[in-house]
Amino acid sequence: MPGFGSEKGVILRQFFALAQGKGGRAAVLPRRSLAKRDRLSADRRRGHNGGPPPCDDANMDASDRTTHEQIRQALAERFGAEFDVPCTLPGADELARIARHRSHRKYRADPVPPELLRLLFACALSAPSKSDLQQADIVHVADRARVKAIVDLIPDMPWINAAPVFLVFCGNNRRIRQIGEWRGKPFANDHLDHFMNAAVDAGLVMMNFIRAAEAVGLGACPISAVRNHPHEVSNLLALPDWVFPVAGLTVGYPAETGRISARLPLEVTVHVDRHDERALERRIDDYDRRRRELQPYRRQRHSGRYEDVPDYGWSEDKARQYAVPERADFGAFIRAKRFRLD
Amino acid sequence: MPGFGSEKGVILRQFFALAQGKGGRAAVLPRRSLAKRDRLSADRRRGHNGGPPPCDDANMDASDRTTHEQIRQALAERFGAEFDVPCTLPGADELARIARHRSHRKYRADPVPPELLRLLFACALSAPSKSDLQQADIVHVADRARVKAIVDLIPDMPWINAAPVFLVFCGNNRRIRQIGEWRGKPFANDHLDHFMNAAVDAGLVMMNFIRAAEAVGLGACPISAVRNHPHEVSNLLALPDWVFPVAGLTVGYPAETGRISARLPLEVTVHVDRHDERALERRIDDYDRRRRELQPYRRQRHSGRYEDVPDYGWSEDKARQYAVPERADFGAFIRAKRFRLD
Repeated sequence: MPGFGSEKGVILRQFFALAQGKGGRAAVLPRRSLAKRDRLSADRRRGHNGGPPPCDDANMDASDRTTHEQIRQALAERFGAEFDVPCTLPGADELARIARHRSHRKYRADPVPPELLRLLFACALSAPSKSDLQQADIVHVADRARVKAIVDLIPDMPWINAAPVFLVFCGNNRRIRQIGEWRGKPFANDHLDHFMNAAVDAGLVMMNFIRAAEAVGLGACPISAVRNHPHEVSNLLALPDWVFPVAGLTVGYPAETGRISARLPLEVTVHVDRHDERALERRIDDYDRRRRELQPYRRQRHSGRYEDVPDYGWSEDKARQYAVPERADFGAFIRAKRFRLD
Repeated sequence: MPGFGSEKGVILRQFFALAQGKGGRAAVLPRRSLAKRDRLSADRRRGHNGGPPPCDDANMDASDRTTHEQIRQALAERFGAEFDVPCTLPGADELARIARHRSHRKYRADPVPPELLRLLFACALSAPSKSDLQQADIVHVADRARVKAIVDLIPDMPWINAAPVFLVFCGNNRRIRQIGEWRGKPFANDHLDHFMNAAVDAGLVMMNFIRAAEAVGLGACPISAVRNHPHEVSNLLALPDWVFPVAGLTVGYPAETGRISARLPLEVTVHVDRHDERALERRIDDYDRRRRELQPYRRQRHSGRYEDVPDYGWSEDKARQYAVPERADFGAFIRAKRFRLD
């Protein structure tokens, strides 16, 4: 792998020095024909002001050029900003899939072969795990009647029934307690950190599963609504004490291209050294505006309760969503599963 | 699925003995002569009972063959089982990186270029997010004195100071509350589910960051110990109310190959339709045995408190670890950050 000491590393360093030295964003790579530049940057110019040049020098083949362009376009659409993609970047295919991620809710009828699913489970469970405790479980809900019983609890998501695969990622704090019993040790960690570790482990495994699934051409959509009626879902899946659902996931071969979900700019979510909320309100206003241009909301949430507003955006939608209690009983469910949460 | 006691297990063991070669590590398959390859694939053919043929037929080029072999080898080592890898699998490079994941704690001195890091942040934050709420923040601790101040709180991990990059992934329940205020809406979700959503969102973003980092040749290691002294870490990073650290992450170009961490067999962590603990105790005994063969523990944990045992394994180690309270004050910290956790 190229670091900055290797030959590729030197090229990377030269690229960044070039890009940074000329005002940060406006550096120009040599050996680009005008025709190529015009073709490639026509789209980019529309939303952006003088971003970095594309990596389309004569040494790149068409496939690499496409991959680099996909990364830049996807991130520009998602964050409303330009990103430099080094010409010699290894793993660009994988970065392109990560950058172009979208949730898929419509699937072709083609089944996902069981052996492929098993391969993806193994890849997913290769994720890091807090203290090597391995507190994530996957329940593959293969029985369609059981899937339907779960979906019946989520009235606004009947489309889940049509997904070829439905999984539920669970946190499992139970195994470590069982192991303690078998090894004659007390269990001294009945507190919030322990609960959170299992929830996060399940999240890591789900994210890793999504990556593996997208690598092989599948699409997926996380379903946190499996927690809307946690007792019932737990009963349907026979989850014992100290095992709890974190999220469902639908999986299948996508029937549609899907859409990139625009994200808050990195100035809001990435901080250097200290948490920083400067200009947050203005940035959220800008983000609302950018999203409205890209993908306006079709309906205003809770329209009976609130009057329609002309510039309905992300922040108004989220403020309305969290003005109404949602899963207020999840804590009681977790405590009924015998967690203390101290 | 075959354990190491079965016929397939014997073949696997032979395979690893061969692959380990000089260093006692099965991480990298050495260059094999044709004769060796033929012997290996003959073994695998024998081991497979009617499954699809191995993907080393004449139609595959050497690079594809190597990738498929890497996936099989990594998962065999990790799970003690054989996995079929379809010959025509798209995205096999990415699956190979996922399957071969390892945590890295030693890095070369080469810095990670700022623009590359920014690209990886954007990729990471392309992860799915619960209800599109985007409750994950990344703090890039760039100031070495601040890194040192955090590492001083984790006495057994001084190596973190030598990592070229140190990040802290945080859950942020604050923004949604601010947005509610700005939009004149009450906040009606002060409960456990809401806290968990932000923690899991941070986990998703960290996992996605690790994938993006490994794609470009970097290595990483999650550090949950940033929660050992959460008040101090929170002060050092100026985390406001409703923002909390989920995990740190060291990042850099790996200086060593690293080791694959063996995992519980899929029979333990993957369930069909109903949570299933059949034969759990035996399977954990088998797993302890398999791990001991692959990577025995160098020390027995809390050896002053417990007598040394001859067959020290994963379950004994984890039972000892959780017999002692760890982060019992994290709940108090989260409540001091004004969470209710109902």
